[in-house]
Amino acid sequence: MKALDPPPRLLLGPGPSMVSPRVLAAMSRPLVGHLDPFFLGLLDRVQQGLRDLFGTGNPLTLPISGTGSAGMETCFVNLVEDGDEVVVGVNGVFGTRMCEVASRLGARVVRVEAEWGSIVEPAAVAEALSKCNKPVLVAVVPAETSTGAWQPIEEIAAAARDAGALVLVDTVTSLGGCPVEVDAWGIDAAYSGTQKCLSCPPGLAPVTFGERAVEKIRTRSSKPKSWYLDVGLIGAYFGNERVYHHTAPVSMIYALSEALAIIEEEGLEARHARHELNHRALMAGLAELGLEPAAAEGHRLWMLNSVRIPDGLDEAAVRRALLGDHGIEIGPGLGPLAGKVWRIGLMGESSRAANVRRLLLALAAEMGRAGVGEARAGAAVEAAEKVHAAASG
Amino acid sequence: MKALDPPPRLLLGPGPSMVSPRVLAAMSRPLVGHLDPFFLGLLDRVQQGLRDLFGTGNPLTLPISGTGSAGMETCFVNLVEDGDEVVVGVNGVFGTRMCEVASRLGARVVRVEAEWGSIVEPAAVAEALSKCNKPVLVAVVPAETSTGAWQPIEEIAAAARDAGALVLVDTVTSLGGCPVEVDAWGIDAAYSGTQKCLSCPPGLAPVTFGERAVEKIRTRSSKPKSWYLDVGLIGAYFGNERVYHHTAPVSMIYALSEALAIIEEEGLEARHARHELNHRALMAGLAELGLEPAAAEGHRLWMLNSVRIPDGLDEAAVRRALLGDHGIEIGPGLGPLAGKVWRIGLMGESSRAANVRRLLLALAAEMGRAGVGEARAGAAVEAAEKVHAAASG
Repeated sequence: MKALDPPPRLLLGPGPSMVSPRVLAAMSRPLVGHLDPFFLGLLDRVQQGLRDLFGTGNPLTLPISGTGSAGMETCFVNLVEDGDEVVVGVNGVFGTRMCEVASRLGARVVRVEAEWGSIVEPAAVAEALSKCNKPVLVAVVPAETSTGAWQPIEEIAAAARDAGALVLVDTVTSLGGCPVEVDAWGIDAAYSGTQKCLSCPPGLAPVTFGERAVEKIRTRSSKPKSWYLDVGLIGAYFGNERVYHHTAPVSMIYALSEALAIIEEEGLEARHARHELNHRALMAGLAELGLEPAAAEGHRLWMLNSVRIPDGLDEAAVRRALLGDHGIEIGPGLGPLAGKVWRIGLMGESSRAANVRRLLLALAAEMGRAGVGEARAGAAVEAAEKVHAAASG
Repeated sequence: MKALDPPPRLLLGPGPSMVSPRVLAAMSRPLVGHLDPFFLGLLDRVQQGLRDLFGTGNPLTLPISGTGSAGMETCFVNLVEDGDEVVVGVNGVFGTRMCEVASRLGARVVRVEAEWGSIVEPAAVAEALSKCNKPVLVAVVPAETSTGAWQPIEEIAAAARDAGALVLVDTVTSLGGCPVEVDAWGIDAAYSGTQKCLSCPPGLAPVTFGERAVEKIRTRSSKPKSWYLDVGLIGAYFGNERVYHHTAPVSMIYALSEALAIIEEEGLEARHARHELNHRALMAGLAELGLEPAAAEGHRLWMLNSVRIPDGLDEAAVRRALLGDHGIEIGPGLGPLAGKVWRIGLMGESSRAANVRRLLLALAAEMGRAGVGEARAGAAVEAAEKVHAAASG
C-alpha cells in the first residue's frame, strides 16, 4: 500500500542517466490509444526528431519497442540472412555482443579484434574485407560503453562501401552526446537507446535504415526471423498505412517526445560542447586523484569516462560507499576490465558541472578513507573548475 | 516548449486500457540504476506478483522488455528449434500471428482452424496431434482479442501432454481479468501484456516457463535465434547471479510494480467478478440497442466484448464521433471481421459501471443520429443498471 519510493540517486554510471522532471511529467500523462489521431501525430514528430538527431533524411527512422539491445538485434535480423558474411569490429562488450547476435541469426561472422580500450584500425577492417567472399555488412561501435573508447567511423564506412557491404553502427552511447552523422558518413543503418545521452528512461531503441539497407531488406530471399522486430511491418504502422502491428508503448513515446524537445531547445552543437567540457573537467579532477584514463589517448569518449583503478584499492567497496553514503552511482568494469576500471557516465542530464564537483568530492573522501592515494579533494575540484572557468572566460 | 497535452480519453478498445493515477505516479518517480539494490528488490517483488497472477510457482517468471507480441516471440524463440512440429489453434488474429512467428523461426506449423468467433475444439487438436510425427508444442489463445472468443484450455492441455508436447498459452487479454491457472491447468509456458487487464501502460510482457519448458530450453541443440529474448540469459539477471544482460526498463517496472500492488489489494477473485458483472451489464444494455454478441454463446469474454454492427450503419463514422465528440475509444474489427464488429474492452480500470453507462449513452446517441435502429438510450442504461442492481441486491 506504501507508494513506490526509490532512493534519490545521482546516476553517473553507464546508464540509465538522469532524467529531466519534464520527461517524467510527460511520461505520467494519461494514455491515449495507439491509433488515436493525437498519438499518430506525436509519432510523426518523434520520427522527425530522431532524424535530426541521427543526421539523416531516412524515412525509415523510428523507435523500436525494446531497449538498446533490441535495436542491435533489429538491425541484424532485418539485414542478415543465413550464410551472410558479416565483419564485426570487436574491442569491447558491445562488439562481442554483435557477433553473438549475428551468429545466432545464421551469419558467418568475421571478427576484427582490437585490445579493449583501443580502437579497431580501419586497415584491419579493410584487410578482413579483402579476405571475404561477398561481405554483406560491416558493423562497428563508435562509442564502446564498456571501455570508453571512441572509434572513428568514416574510413571504415568507406572501406565497407568499396567492398559492397552495408555499414551498421551502434550509436547507443554516442547519440545526443557527440556528433553522429548517418548521411554524411555513409552509414546504412544505426541503432541507439534512450537511456544514455537522450536522458529518457530505458525502454526504446531508435533505429534508422538508409536506402541501401531498405533495398537489401526488400530483396531478402527469406523473411526476417523475428516478427516483432520486422521493420517492414513496423514501418507500415509508422508510415501512412498505419497498419496495426503491436501496441506501441504509449507512455515511453510520450517520454521520448519530451526528451527530443529538450534536445532541440538546447541545440545539438551546444549539447555536444557541454558533454566535451564536462568530460575535460572531470578528467582534470580525476588526474589529481591519481586516476588515469583507460581508453587510448585521442580516442576517449566525452560521455563515458573509464579510468584505471589504483593498485590495492577495494574498488567494489568504494562503489558501495558512493552509492550507499553519497547516493552516487558509477559503473564497474566489464569482462576483462572487471575490477580494473571504473566507468563514469556524464550523459545527457547527468553531464553537469555540479555533478562533476559532487563526484570528485565524494570519490576523494572515499579513496582517502581507503588509504589509497592522497585525498586531494581540494586540488581535484580546483582542477575541474579551472577547465570550466577557461571555457566560460 | 508546450507541455505534452494528450486529450482525455475513456479507453474502451482492445488496449491500452485506463491506467490508474497511482500507476502513472509510480512511473514518474526518479530513476535508479538497473543494478541498484532498491531496483533488484523491486524485481523480486514483481516476479512474485506475476507468479500469483499466473497461478504458478515457476521460478522463471518475469517481465520481458517489450510489448505482448514480444512475449509471444519470447516463448516460441526459446521453445522451438528448426524443424520442430508445432500445433497452433487458429480462430483469430493472434493464433494467426503465432503461426507466422513460429514459421519464421523454422518450425513446421500445423494449423487447427476454427471460424473466427468460435472456439478451437479439443477433439480437432487431438486429431492434429495424432497425425504429427513428434509434436513439440501446442499453442492456443484462451482469450482471442480479435473476436472476443473465450477458449477453454484444460482439455487441450491434457491432449498435448498425452502427445508429449508442451502447452503454450497466450494470456495477453485474460491475465488479471478472468481465471488463469498455469499450474493447475498443466500449462508449460504463457505470456501476457501489461496494457489490458493489468491496467499498466504497454511496454512489458510477463512470461512464465514451467519445469518441462525449462528442461526443453536446457537441452536445446542450438541457441535460441534471439539474443535479446533468450530467457536463459534474462533469467540470469533476474536470478541470484544478477548478470547484466540489457538495461531493464526501470520506469515501466515501477509502473508494473504499482499495477500489481493494486491487483493484490483488490484480490483476484473480486477482480474477476467485477469483470464478469460489468460484461453482463454492458451486454444487457447493448442488446437494447440491437447490438448482438459476435462470439459464440457460452464462449464470450468478460473483458473484450465483440458485437455485430447492424446493416447499413457507417461504423467508422460512429467510432469517429465516439472518439471526437465523446472522448471514448472503442475498437474496430480486424481481418475478416473488419467493418462487421466493434470490440469493446472492459479491462482492468476500464471495467467500471460508470464507464458502461457512459458508453451506452454515447453509443445510443450516435446510432440514433445515424438513423439506424432505435435510439433506446434510456432502455439500454436501465437494462445495464438492472444487472448491477441484481448483483448488489
